Amino acid sequence: MRALVLGDAAPSVTDVPAPTREPGEALVRMRVAGVCDTDLQLMRGYMGFRGVPGHEFVGEVVESEDPHWTGRRVVADINAGCGTCDECRAHGGHHCPHRSVLGILDRAGAFAERFTVPERCLVAVPPAVSDDAAVFAEPLAAALHVLDTFDAASRPSRAVVLGDGKLGLLIVRALAGEGIPTSLVGRHEKKLALARKVAGVETHLEADAPASLQAAPLVVEATGSEAGLARALSLVAPRGTVVLKTTVAQKLNVDLAPLVINEVRLVGSRCGDLQRAIDVLAAGRVDPLPLVETRYPLARADEALAHAGKKGALKVLVDG
Amino acid sequence: MRALVLGDAAPSVTDVPAPTREPGEALVRMRVAGVCDTDLQLMRGYMGFRGVPGHEFVGEVVESEDPHWTGRRVVADINAGCGTCDECRAHGGHHCPHRSVLGILDRAGAFAERFTVPERCLVAVPPAVSDDAAVFAEPLAAALHVLDTFDAASRPSRAVVLGDGKLGLLIVRALAGEGIPTSLVGRHEKKLALARKVAGVETHLEADAPASLQAAPLVVEATGSEAGLARALSLVAPRGTVVLKTTVAQKLNVDLAPLVINEVRLVGSRCGDLQRAIDVLAAGRVDPLPLVETRYPLARADEALAHAGKKGALKVLVDG
Repeated sequence: MRALVLGDAAPSVTDVPAPTREPGEALVRMRVAGVCDTDLQLMRGYMGFRGVPGHEFVGEVVESEDPHWTGRRVVADINAGCGTCDECRAHGGHHCPHRSVLGILDRAGAFAERFTVPERCLVAVPPAVSDDAAVFAEPLAAALHVLDTFDAASRPSRAVVLGDGKLGLLIVRALAGEGIPTSLVGRHEKKLALARKVAGVETHLEADAPASLQAAPLVVEATGSEAGLARALSLVAPRGTVVLKTTVAQKLNVDLAPLVINEVRLVGSRCGDLQRAIDVLAAGRVDPLPLVETRYPLARADEALAHAGKKGALKVLVDG
Repeated sequence: MRALVLGDAAPSVTDVPAPTREPGEALVRMRVAGVCDTDLQLMRGYMGFRGVPGHEFVGEVVESEDPHWTGRRVVADINAGCGTCDECRAHGGHHCPHRSVLGILDRAGAFAERFTVPERCLVAVPPAVSDDAAVFAEPLAAALHVLDTFDAASRPSRAVVLGDGKLGLLIVRALAGEGIPTSLVGRHEKKLALARKVAGVETHLEADAPASLQAAPLVVEATGSEAGLARALSLVAPRGTVVLKTTVAQKLNVDLAPLVINEVRLVGSRCGDLQRAIDVLAAGRVDPLPLVETRYPLARADEALAHAGKKGALKVLVDG
């Protein structure tokens, strides 16, 4: 079958052996997959990944252990925990020490005609959610996961999001969808204009960000840059929260004294709940479709990656 | 009056004008003061402080606006907020943007015969608490403040404290006093032996720390070193909490990817509640007296600072 493969050479679409479904797994035919910045990082050597990348997808189950799944349109949690350890049983597979991660760690991903995922990771996609919306379920789940960093008692009165990349644009939708007035600080007028269309969102170019943004109870760092954290710490209020979404491959050179002096909480935040994302999409509370930049067929998935790597690019989709 | 003064030259005890009590303030005669590592940092230029340092003390009120205070033995919250802003009214003065801080920021400190503090910062010391115990109220409050980083629902099953300095030794007492089994990792067998005398505390030399310490739900970083944070991140469990107590004057060079991948909370923690500290001392739940290394009269407070700066020194007291 055809798949995009990362290895020593440049990414290329090539023929690879079709995957074998293991017990408890579903064999999935890819319908649409999305390119994430993590894919670009994997391409540059992050995690030492070799093989088929791709973890944002909507697909159709072609073979499964539980016949209930066969023929259904699905998305999936990318963290395939062992399912049996204390961590998996108490909290699911997101932090299972033995987990594989679709297209990122020890598991071939979705830029392929077919791939496998554990059935316990599957989430059904209702008819109301289109393929192009459903393919956002994974990054939207990650964006909605920002809401898990506070409870009703500590709900922030406003939020600042740093970074107008694909994830930042979903995070402002997640926060504004929750009724939290949100300011987005970014570098691309085109993307900021897109964000401003969402009710409850105001935007600022980084160079023009006003002093009124300071003392924010919640700041989300989604710039993917080394400077982002220091900027977040300069904007957050005493006793406030900075949510760190981006992993920077290199070490940061950062002054953390403000974190101690102002008693700030810095919270790392990664993957979220796919079912919640699908529910939010089905309810029409977040519309991700304006984020689609362009699409390529699987046969040209290498070009899709190259396109996604262009400065300022939004979501690039790959059709199965 | 006599006071220790930090300026361009080496710290020295000299004659300075007696302080004038402003409205709302109490004039306090110092009975005992303690040397904190922050004093040593101020000596090296931290905060650009000039004047009389000293923020750990027990004293006697010699003159006050409210006659209730006169003659009473007191400690005080070192953060003198304006008392009128929203922050002060909602949360007290710890994060008031206009605050002065005793012996640290815009307010002469306790290494003096007399000094002033706002009366709203005073906490009375009951007879059951000796001067030598009461002088620990400020650092003990900071240690007990670690307990504010979790609630009953997220109470950690165990804790690891990094750093066997004066603060680390109080933090293990605070945690163990709360019934949380605590492992202290340090570099000085003498200090570790002291910590081991506290019920519920086990200790390890840094070089011999066992793998079983890993995956701790709570890690407190109190080493005061640049390497401490990376070590804390390597020991904390997924979704766990690292409490950062030490401010390192220089920028840190740190890989924060584990914080995101493991969804760790990094919580800055500074000053605590003096009344709580006095209550804990009065109830005998924490005994700080084994931490006293030696004492000097105020006339030799410069020697007290020098002594406190020696490698491995514990608490050095100054008698008024």
